[in-house]
Amino acid sequence: MYKPNENLRKVNIEDVPFKNIYGRVGKVTSPLPLLFNGSGVEVTVTGQELWIDVETDSDFHEMWVAYELNGSIMGRFMLLPGEHSICLFRNMTFDAPKTVKFYRELQAMSEDEYVKLLVKGFKLDGEFKEVPSHKYKIEFIGDSITSGEGTYGAYEDTDWLAMYMGFSRNYANMTSKALDADYHIISQGGWGVYCGWDNDIRHNIPSVYEKVCGLSTGEAARELGMMDEYDFESWQPDAIVVNLGTNDDTAFFQPPFTVPETGITYFQRLNEDGSFFEEDLMNVEKAVIDFLIMLRKHNKTAHIVWCYGMLGYRLTLPITEAINAYKLSTGDKNIGFINLPNTTKDGYGSHMHPGEVSHRIASEVLIGYLKEKLEGNQ
Amino acid sequence: MYKPNENLRKVNIEDVPFKNIYGRVGKVTSPLPLLFNGSGVEVTVTGQELWIDVETDSDFHEMWVAYELNGSIMGRFMLLPGEHSICLFRNMTFDAPKTVKFYRELQAMSEDEYVKLLVKGFKLDGEFKEVPSHKYKIEFIGDSITSGEGTYGAYEDTDWLAMYMGFSRNYANMTSKALDADYHIISQGGWGVYCGWDNDIRHNIPSVYEKVCGLSTGEAARELGMMDEYDFESWQPDAIVVNLGTNDDTAFFQPPFTVPETGITYFQRLNEDGSFFEEDLMNVEKAVIDFLIMLRKHNKTAHIVWCYGMLGYRLTLPITEAINAYKLSTGDKNIGFINLPNTTKDGYGSHMHPGEVSHRIASEVLIGYLKEKLEGNQ
Amino acid sequence: MYKPNENLRKVNIEDVPFKNIYGRVGKVTSPLPLLFNGSGVEVTVTGQELWIDVETDSDFHEMWVAYELNGSIMGRFMLLPGEHSICLFRNMTFDAPKTVKFYRELQAMSEDEYVKLLVKGFKLDGEFKEVPSHKYKIEFIGDSITSGEGTYGAYEDTDWLAMYMGFSRNYANMTSKALDADYHIISQGGWGVYCGWDNDIRHNIPSVYEKVCGLSTGEAARELGMMDEYDFESWQPDAIVVNLGTNDDTAFFQPPFTVPETGITYFQRLNEDGSFFEEDLMNVEKAVIDFLIMLRKHNKTAHIVWCYGMLGYRLTLPITEAINAYKLSTGDKNIGFINLPNTTKDGYGSHMHPGEVSHRIASEVLIGYLKEKLEGNQ
Amino acid sequence: MYKPNENLRKVNIEDVPFKNIYGRVGKVTSPLPLLFNGSGVEVTVTGQELWIDVETDSDFHEMWVAYELNGSIMGRFMLLPGEHSICLFRNMTFDAPKTVKFYRELQAMSEDEYVKLLVKGFKLDGEFKEVPSHKYKIEFIGDSITSGEGTYGAYEDTDWLAMYMGFSRNYANMTSKALDADYHIISQGGWGVYCGWDNDIRHNIPSVYEKVCGLSTGEAARELGMMDEYDFESWQPDAIVVNLGTNDDTAFFQPPFTVPETGITYFQRLNEDGSFFEEDLMNVEKAVIDFLIMLRKHNKTAHIVWCYGMLGYRLTLPITEAINAYKLSTGDKNIGFINLPNTTKDGYGSHMHPGEVSHRIASEVLIGYLKEKLEGNQ
Repeated sequence: MYKPNENLRKVNIEDVPFKNIYGRVGKVTSPLPLLFNGSGVEVTVTGQELWIDVETDSDFHEMWVAYELNGSIMGRFMLLPGEHSICLFRNMTFDAPKTVKFYRELQAMSEDEYVKLLVKGFKLDGEFKEVPSHKYKIEFIGDSITSGEGTYGAYEDTDWLAMYMGFSRNYANMTSKALDADYHIISQGGWGVYCGWDNDIRHNIPSVYEKVCGLSTGEAARELGMMDEYDFESWQPDAIVVNLGTNDDTAFFQPPFTVPETGITYFQRLNEDGSFFEEDLMNVEKAVIDFLIMLRKHNKTAHIVWCYGMLGYRLTLPITEAINAYKLSTGDKNIGFINLPNTTKDGYGSHMHPGEVSHRIASEVLIGYLKEKLEGNQ
Repeated sequence: MYKPNENLRKVNIEDVPFKNIYGRVGKVTSPLPLLFNGSGVEVTVTGQELWIDVETDSDFHEMWVAYELNGSIMGRFMLLPGEHSICLFRNMTFDAPKTVKFYRELQAMSEDEYVKLLVKGFKLDGEFKEVPSHKYKIEFIGDSITSGEGTYGAYEDTDWLAMYMGFSRNYANMTSKALDADYHIISQGGWGVYCGWDNDIRHNIPSVYEKVCGLSTGEAARELGMMDEYDFESWQPDAIVVNLGTNDDTAFFQPPFTVPETGITYFQRLNEDGSFFEEDLMNVEKAVIDFLIMLRKHNKTAHIVWCYGMLGYRLTLPITEAINAYKLSTGDKNIGFINLPNTTKDGYGSHMHPGEVSHRIASEVLIGYLKEKLEGNQ
Repeated sequence: MYKPNENLRKVNIEDVPFKNIYGRVGKVTSPLPLLFNGSGVEVTVTGQELWIDVETDSDFHEMWVAYELNGSIMGRFMLLPGEHSICLFRNMTFDAPKTVKFYRELQAMSEDEYVKLLVKGFKLDGEFKEVPSHKYKIEFIGDSITSGEGTYGAYEDTDWLAMYMGFSRNYANMTSKALDADYHIISQGGWGVYCGWDNDIRHNIPSVYEKVCGLSTGEAARELGMMDEYDFESWQPDAIVVNLGTNDDTAFFQPPFTVPETGITYFQRLNEDGSFFEEDLMNVEKAVIDFLIMLRKHNKTAHIVWCYGMLGYRLTLPITEAINAYKLSTGDKNIGFINLPNTTKDGYGSHMHPGEVSHRIASEVLIGYLKEKLEGNQ
Repeated sequence: MYKPNENLRKVNIEDVPFKNIYGRVGKVTSPLPLLFNGSGVEVTVTGQELWIDVETDSDFHEMWVAYELNGSIMGRFMLLPGEHSICLFRNMTFDAPKTVKFYRELQAMSEDEYVKLLVKGFKLDGEFKEVPSHKYKIEFIGDSITSGEGTYGAYEDTDWLAMYMGFSRNYANMTSKALDADYHIISQGGWGVYCGWDNDIRHNIPSVYEKVCGLSTGEAARELGMMDEYDFESWQPDAIVVNLGTNDDTAFFQPPFTVPETGITYFQRLNEDGSFFEEDLMNVEKAVIDFLIMLRKHNKTAHIVWCYGMLGYRLTLPITEAINAYKLSTGDKNIGFINLPNTTKDGYGSHMHPGEVSHRIASEVLIGYLKEKLEGNQ
């Protein structure tokens, strides 16, 4: 008969002596908010049993989480609003150290002001040990691709739902693992560097980059300090991977969008021959340049690489034009561009987004690129 | 703010008008016990939201479950003893039919008399629709390989724990999907056709095959009818895949085992040159023959194929000798043998068992074999 | 005992009623010079037996050829100077049509003024039939990668030799096959768009592009009309793939080069921090622009895509800068850029060049890109 | 202008101080007859240039050969009857040792009494060096699969021709390379262990196994000593791979065959239900047993493994029954059986035979099996 483990003791998150925290944090770290997909906490423990205590809230888009034991995924599930005490393993050999990483699958939700995931602490019957540290730090900035949208779900599934997103099968996860890297992720489905897929000018990543988690806008978010200026000094990456442009491209093929607050209408136009209207393209290019300036301002030494192509190549040349202009005007040479291979027929997951196969192919190209940069060979 | 869906209505499992049940069932079907790994229930529903209500119990080996949405895995998690109401999806397009399959990852646990998983019903805001039926029926009978042991977990993980087992990444799942087959699974880690890996004569699959779920021995199991004779007429497979022999092989390399109840010691011996002691090998061969007779008694028309090799080939010839003897003595020709490829270095999962890669390779061979048999080409 | 086929009749190349010719041709087409790697002749014949009559000459770099039967490679071999009558198949079913393609593996050799391969005719006992035509026309322009250098030979082989080059395992071959395309190839190992790998300013592809085969400089070449202006109207491609830049990159890391004829020294310099010296980089960018202008002048409707990356990404941004400048100044929008994945450890062939594996990976990316362009989807 | 290398000197095969010879040889070794597919000669030389001098003859089935340079295939071509002096490489770095292996692609041709391939010597400008030796010795015995039939040619090609056969893409080659093994091959398309695919009783491999090359029957063969008893002591393998049974299976589905010399008709029959007629199956089983006895007689210590399955599994159980009977009656335990995976849709080459992909899959299974046996782990 099941008997609760009487040797479990509760340790609040602030009292955990050793832990790796993945993803940005703000002023509130206890309980620890996991703000982005991939945001997580990792501990190495002895003992037979480990639990994690979390609190979640949400509205339309419920929270999804996953965890890995010794680097291998063990569980993935939905958490509805409330307090959850989750058993991560039981009955393991007491003395052997186990490394467990618990992380958020769901992206920061700009459309759900209630959504949150707070880690309050652990329950264990062993001891915390030093957690292995990583060789590199990488920041990933992107849209639905970087949010792992479509990495779960069947090809036929076309709803826009939390459960289809994930970090567990995402190229950012694959890349970080292959390079032994700590990472931050800032991404939002449907957003661009200049505007969202639907011409909504407000949905641009640069506008939220300098906040701790500017994507979260509700009252709760404010209390957790997500609207605060992010302290970039606290975590300086070796490389920044920007995977944006896909939605800026889509916007050209969508109707105009009027921002409700201002009544101003935005519209990225096509020429009659189907090519991009040059002046509107300049909007995107200017946004790229401005974003690079912003990135460099806060990340003095990181190599910045703009990745693009997993859902079409149309903006390759405009993006590189902007990068070149940025290089020329600033003299900054520590920046690059690389195409990631477009998703082909067998590579799709759900919702017409890259599936695990496509993320695997893309990560192999990116790993090759970053390996040379980080090891200083090229 | 999260508001519970007020349109959800509860439907007890016996009132669900359309459902696929995977795995054996006994006299009690409401609540519906999911007895083996892979045992599950599948429904097709309209509506925005679907919940499943289950009850679990266990002692050492906690329950693990998973579910698929439209054929793609969505969640996998541990369930500790108690009642659980689990949300499977939310906010999907109301009218679109969705097929959801909820199943047990954990094998029937002969060592945990409390372990159980009962499906009590669903909560939904839509309607049940007819569930697509399958083309074939396949029964898989095996040991830890068929219990998917090692398909989760890191290579370094060597504990013997519930969480490492699974159906989701198991060759039986892959094979059934590829052939569009309904399936039954009867498997138990450490057991053989003649004896267990440690010479424990009681741990042989034939001894439990004729009960509904003879692996479960506690009081609760008795109440659920697991000790009852199984009604083979209720589900006649097109093919039976027997994947046994791996533990019978291991026993030869282990010390003797004394059955506590009887005080009798059992010992499969090696010759001095390291080969199997012929007389003891006969035990295995006789067990194979007897088991085939038992299988045929209950499954008159199924093609029976004995699979072997994923963890070593040493018993290939003894097993085929037994199969040939069975064929000769009975005249039964509807039987075959096939090697599944041995697990190589990169194919291991945890606990020195075949990982997902090895299961994939094995399933491709098995699929090829069964396709010809089931389509009547060979 | 072998008896020569008495029904063979000789047909001079100019009398072959149906044939596909791959690769550029000049004024002399009988005998038919195969000038570049991939240059070849394809016929569809009935009959039991087929021979091809060729004449070759060479100095240091001997000729290598290969042939395919019904799209599958059958033979590959060296041809030393002289007349060769080569049996391509024997004893096939008489009436069945067979398509045979005989082609040059060796690139046009700018360093061997004697090298040549002339097809004089065929011997057959059947009839020539219409040869299946292709859906698209693609021109590939490149360096050693496009010459297939390293696609044959062991990883340890580091000599610079004819036998390591090839079309048979080259991405241009894979891409053309996948897209059902006729192709032209103009490529030369060690050459760039601005200069060769060793700063030799003369080794730039644009300088030879407008001649039939400007890479061949000897007396024989002149007689065959290789120095003549190429008649671009005779073959207008749907797409032009330019895979240049790898040697322009290498030049920055090499010592200066003095052109013997002029005594002028050329030197692409690095800054002290290891970055490219801007002024010298401008040489490359200007060469890219000028070459694009040249390409467009002769190919009014072709989509031009610059491919780059199989041996490093360092010139990605300079090349795109040039392409963007070209677009801006000319208004030409029918042009693109794409990275091909860098060769990783397991992808190398001989001589530190991409092997078959790397060509396969690159071709998959290129095929995806071209498919969308050629089918007009993007 | 091409100038013949004046430093070349001719060395007769018997004067080559170091060489690896692959495949059986008889009393005549100078010139060296290459009797089977895979039969070849390997030398390690310094110098810039290497030629091989061979003499060939044939009737219907012309000779095909291939060669590898430093382990990587470089050329493959047809040789019509006559003397051939073939340049294998030119202009390599003089001092570097190069290992070149020249081998026969075409199986021993029982249906072409003229076919032969004799190596007379080499021409080189360097020196012969010691050739690296191999770790193991493996004998492969088989039918068209082991003759590599279908490993060249398009899926649509269905003629039975020399050019479709090969050793270069054959599982025996892949297996030997992976295990660092010297090898012998005795194989013949259409032959079985009991009878040929068409019930021709004369076409069984055991009948020719004890001759040097009993498959070659002409006058020339006799002179070369191919009909002599083979000296098994001269080369004792560590493992024998028998891949036979596929044609014995096919015979059951073919009409009777009358041997012209005797007028006796042979016919492997099916029962009305489509199963094998037991008495006729016994012919096959007896042939298996007898062949195993023959193999063991000549190879006292080799591990013998019977492989089966690449073109169907129907004889798996009869073959294992015979092996088990052999084991029982002889006490020989150094023998095994393993299924090789059946060829699936994408795995076919030409002539409905396994293509390179299928040979690759099969070799991986076989390599895994042999590695354990040869390294003594199982």
